[in-house]
Amino acid sequence: MTSTDTFKPSSPRSCLAIVLAAGEGTRMKSAKPKVLHQVANRSMLGHVLAALTTAGATSTAVVIGPDREDVAKEVQKDRPDAWIFVQKDRLGTAHAVLTAREALEQPVDDVIVAFGDTPLILPETFAKLRAPLAEGAAVVAMGFEAKDPTGYGRFITSGDQLLAIREHKDASEAERAITLCNGGLMAIRGDVALTLLDRVENTNVKGEYYLTDIVEIARHLGHRTAIAVVSEEEVHGVNDRAQLAAAERIIQERLRHEVMASGVTLVAPETVFLSHDTRLGQDVVVEPHVVFGPGVVVEAGAVIHSFSHLEGAHIAAGAGVGPFARLRPGASVGPRAKVGNFVEIKNTELGAGAKVSHLTYLGDASVGAEANIGAGTITCNYDGFGKYRTEIGEGAFIGSNSSLVAPVTIGKGAFVGSGSVITESIPADALGLGRGRQTVKEGWAIAFREKAQAAKRK
Amino acid sequence: MTSTDTFKPSSPRSCLAIVLAAGEGTRMKSAKPKVLHQVANRSMLGHVLAALTTAGATSTAVVIGPDREDVAKEVQKDRPDAWIFVQKDRLGTAHAVLTAREALEQPVDDVIVAFGDTPLILPETFAKLRAPLAEGAAVVAMGFEAKDPTGYGRFITSGDQLLAIREHKDASEAERAITLCNGGLMAIRGDVALTLLDRVENTNVKGEYYLTDIVEIARHLGHRTAIAVVSEEEVHGVNDRAQLAAAERIIQERLRHEVMASGVTLVAPETVFLSHDTRLGQDVVVEPHVVFGPGVVVEAGAVIHSFSHLEGAHIAAGAGVGPFARLRPGASVGPRAKVGNFVEIKNTELGAGAKVSHLTYLGDASVGAEANIGAGTITCNYDGFGKYRTEIGEGAFIGSNSSLVAPVTIGKGAFVGSGSVITESIPADALGLGRGRQTVKEGWAIAFREKAQAAKRK
Amino acid sequence: MTSTDTFKPSSPRSCLAIVLAAGEGTRMKSAKPKVLHQVANRSMLGHVLAALTTAGATSTAVVIGPDREDVAKEVQKDRPDAWIFVQKDRLGTAHAVLTAREALEQPVDDVIVAFGDTPLILPETFAKLRAPLAEGAAVVAMGFEAKDPTGYGRFITSGDQLLAIREHKDASEAERAITLCNGGLMAIRGDVALTLLDRVENTNVKGEYYLTDIVEIARHLGHRTAIAVVSEEEVHGVNDRAQLAAAERIIQERLRHEVMASGVTLVAPETVFLSHDTRLGQDVVVEPHVVFGPGVVVEAGAVIHSFSHLEGAHIAAGAGVGPFARLRPGASVGPRAKVGNFVEIKNTELGAGAKVSHLTYLGDASVGAEANIGAGTITCNYDGFGKYRTEIGEGAFIGSNSSLVAPVTIGKGAFVGSGSVITESIPADALGLGRGRQTVKEGWAIAFREKAQAAKRK
Repeated sequence: MTSTDTFKPSSPRSCLAIVLAAGEGTRMKSAKPKVLHQVANRSMLGHVLAALTTAGATSTAVVIGPDREDVAKEVQKDRPDAWIFVQKDRLGTAHAVLTAREALEQPVDDVIVAFGDTPLILPETFAKLRAPLAEGAAVVAMGFEAKDPTGYGRFITSGDQLLAIREHKDASEAERAITLCNGGLMAIRGDVALTLLDRVENTNVKGEYYLTDIVEIARHLGHRTAIAVVSEEEVHGVNDRAQLAAAERIIQERLRHEVMASGVTLVAPETVFLSHDTRLGQDVVVEPHVVFGPGVVVEAGAVIHSFSHLEGAHIAAGAGVGPFARLRPGASVGPRAKVGNFVEIKNTELGAGAKVSHLTYLGDASVGAEANIGAGTITCNYDGFGKYRTEIGEGAFIGSNSSLVAPVTIGKGAFVGSGSVITESIPADALGLGRGRQTVKEGWAIAFREKAQAAKRK
Repeated sequence: MTSTDTFKPSSPRSCLAIVLAAGEGTRMKSAKPKVLHQVANRSMLGHVLAALTTAGATSTAVVIGPDREDVAKEVQKDRPDAWIFVQKDRLGTAHAVLTAREALEQPVDDVIVAFGDTPLILPETFAKLRAPLAEGAAVVAMGFEAKDPTGYGRFITSGDQLLAIREHKDASEAERAITLCNGGLMAIRGDVALTLLDRVENTNVKGEYYLTDIVEIARHLGHRTAIAVVSEEEVHGVNDRAQLAAAERIIQERLRHEVMASGVTLVAPETVFLSHDTRLGQDVVVEPHVVFGPGVVVEAGAVIHSFSHLEGAHIAAGAGVGPFARLRPGASVGPRAKVGNFVEIKNTELGAGAKVSHLTYLGDASVGAEANIGAGTITCNYDGFGKYRTEIGEGAFIGSNSSLVAPVTIGKGAFVGSGSVITESIPADALGLGRGRQTVKEGWAIAFREKAQAAKRK
Repeated sequence: MTSTDTFKPSSPRSCLAIVLAAGEGTRMKSAKPKVLHQVANRSMLGHVLAALTTAGATSTAVVIGPDREDVAKEVQKDRPDAWIFVQKDRLGTAHAVLTAREALEQPVDDVIVAFGDTPLILPETFAKLRAPLAEGAAVVAMGFEAKDPTGYGRFITSGDQLLAIREHKDASEAERAITLCNGGLMAIRGDVALTLLDRVENTNVKGEYYLTDIVEIARHLGHRTAIAVVSEEEVHGVNDRAQLAAAERIIQERLRHEVMASGVTLVAPETVFLSHDTRLGQDVVVEPHVVFGPGVVVEAGAVIHSFSHLEGAHIAAGAGVGPFARLRPGASVGPRAKVGNFVEIKNTELGAGAKVSHLTYLGDASVGAEANIGAGTITCNYDGFGKYRTEIGEGAFIGSNSSLVAPVTIGKGAFVGSGSVITESIPADALGLGRGRQTVKEGWAIAFREKAQAAKRK
């Protein structure tokens, strides 16, 4: 659904992606490493890895900071085959890339250097970055037209050749007028990558090894260099929480735009939050104020009413969900089934046309087609130690305010009387009751009120 | 409340409105015809019909596509007296208008040609369009100042006369500099309408009959022509889901602006969604994140708290609703009554000062003044076949987690004990109980935990 | 958290703040006086008073309209030591200030004149306004650079001296070109304040006493005058509901910006509504669509899920709240405790690691560490007259759909069977049950369906 997922790369060339993800991100003011912060329910690093995979990366190396098992784990979740390298000292971007020396020593056509904190990057951008390598360039740098170039490295070009990347502070007045700035990303031809990187020196004020130096090194060795251009938005790294929120907004706008283009009605797109993997079928209607967590599929013509919260759920065609519904992982809502207000469903399958209209919790259950679950029904699936299943048959009718103590089975067409506690299974077409008998104490309220008021007077 | 509803037309002239609503709307990617898609809980066609009615249309003809009973039904809902014509072949706008020949043959002062996919059009705009007819013009075309005129027909004018409408592709370089563009809407004097329309020819590349040709035909016959000008926003047709969302946003902004101007506080207007017919009294406060479906009236000084969802409901003065309340059609909340969180109310009248504070479903019920409905109360109004009523008397007190099995009556001042299932009516001032007696098994939990842990170890 | 709260003034000078709060605010169309309308859950007047206090006001006088006990009460809530003066006749701003003559007669270094309908004003702005007094100026007027100066009084200056404030209607063509306009606020040296104010005359068309006249009076008496400059946004008074909503939006943006800067993730800041006093710890994550009422503190690393509504609540580190949770005043959620969906908690303490996952109302209760409260549990804390407490011990397990009729104690490690009504306390480690025994009527549903269908046929 997202561009990340639908872009089809065409290059037959092998490609090593090196992702720099060791930054501490102090401006995030977080105990969590920067690249693990999420947008659209995927870590920033996860977005970059996914875009690289879609763009045709055949192998991946991620450079992480010391003691960052959490980052390593996130990489392995998405790319279990990825190299992981730890950058102990922070000696500049070229040094960070060279941490992945073992990966660079493998024969590969293209090398991409990417950054773990740029979640907005698109696969087609990586493809654009690689393209000149196939035509003989040794180094390709990604530039963007800066609205305000102050502080950015400038691209010094001659025709389509990149001569150098000049740091702002080192730039002449004339060079500072250049608005094509360094976006950080680079592509390097695999056969020369190590040669170029190993020649980078740290003879500068900060004593760091700058990746940007390989442009001039390549030129010096007689190689061709090239540029690719991207929007400023895509290459902007996220450095603080406001930028994180801004990245979230942009990704949400992309996702909303894509679902609308595919024939989904978002009544108020700005109030609907999608996940990177949300799948919505044609003529799905999503009312204002809906949140989609990861792993949701909604089929054609279903309606998601306002104030619904869905994750890991499947909603079949023509079903209705909400308002005020919460679907948790493993919730499967059958065709034309209805999930109403203040209903929570977890790890439960609802059959076609089943109705769960109000104030209900269904967990670890299956509900047959056309069954009707009364208001206030609760599956008691947990006894403090284990979790147990509740099976409700086709066309069964569960009276309101009932407690179904799992494991328990309600047979096909059976009824449960309102307010019952059901601890034993009920055969098909039977009635189960488990409640006290009603008694009435005439005039009780008069006495009670007198007593209560007397107590208050004291 | 909306301009649609408050504009008062003054013309004494009769007026036939012809609404073209046969477009397939393929870019909507929808099984539903385009004009039935909704904004502010009314179909786009419904908005146009309402605006025409307010603008003084005395008769209406709607031109629909073949096999579109759904569109015909929508027309009849709003205007049961409307002519409905089916356009079988798509031979251009003039041909579409002539489909309504039977309507055009009736004597009428003014004819308006409108479009079913322009839900933002205001009644005053139709009035403006008609006005020159009363002063002798034969044809009036609606133009707008285009931000980017590329692709639009240009208005070729001389003084206040419209000479012709030139298609973009036929326009000279000089004509393309014109920014006053064709908005599509036309008004035609009734006595000449058929004469003009019948002279339109299809001697053009596409072989279609263009409505715009009547401008030059009228001039040729010695008639006066005129222009009216409207904002680009109003005449923009909705062609895809993004444009539908944009139209929704504009209508919502209009509606919010109008209620604020009338003395309503919308704490965060951008998070409140109104319907075209929402009525909010003075000093009503609407907190962030509230959705009004159709048919809601809220009287002075009531407060609608966050996360509330209301449709077809009446809320009396000084009442409080939410947060997390859902009022469904037929809910009537009395003066100073309170509806609290996770409460659903349907087809139920709450008396003055009654309180339904938490986790409750009231359906098909009436609740007397000052009654208190405990948390978790459920009216069991449905037995799988029929629906039944629950009557709760003034000042009654329903204990928490009770199930009231309808039909049932709780008398004035009566009490229901917590957790009761009430299947038989309770007299006034009596106490009704229907629950099991409590027993305690000492030390049971120790044994249970040991057993459960032993089972886990296995 | 807000600038209002964190700004630290440094002046050792005493300062009388006179706040004009007598305006009727007819454009608000409200029964409530304008200055009591709220933004970020504090009255506009409350914001101004708080900013003045932070800016170092050592005494406060508020000028209110006749019969406005509600305004007086609001003042006393924040500043019980404030003078309150009633302005009976509306004879202009200088007259309004002189209503506070008794306060002006006390010796004081600085006098600030502020307005009760400018909730966006910051303490540093008041500090800036006072600063020139310490350097000898007698009068300081607050100006702003107007985007469109039409209608505003213009600052006629000479160097850093303010010569006069010229009303728009009295201004020459040249003066109208001035864009530095009168923001209304003034600071006056205490030793000359009454002298200047008493010389203001009402020899103008409207017969009013204008505060702005003291500039020329001061100059005439040989005093120095000065200007301070503020953003237009800050000094804009709120006059109607749209402006109230605009002020709310600006304050929300400030509050969101501040919490993000401090290390909080707001996934979708535009959907999160904070109060002026909301406190969020580092690495707190707030998902989309959350509303914070007044008095909420959330400690580090807690997650507030979507569709949550919190007021007067304390959430400890690592806790999780929502989605669809409502925390009311006195709710205290312990470390790592979880409050799930459709749960309302009021005046209740949850111990560390306790879980209240679904469809529950806890009121006037305490819940021990690691206790598990089943779905549908309700504390029956109210009997129609008094409120009573429920005590739940550490590690207790409350079965689903239970009603705990307070006053009642559930011992440490005790269990309550699902669907029980508990009216008497349960010892530690015991099992409490209070529910009907289950019975089954075989084949009942077949007969019921036949009967129901037969009835329908009739």
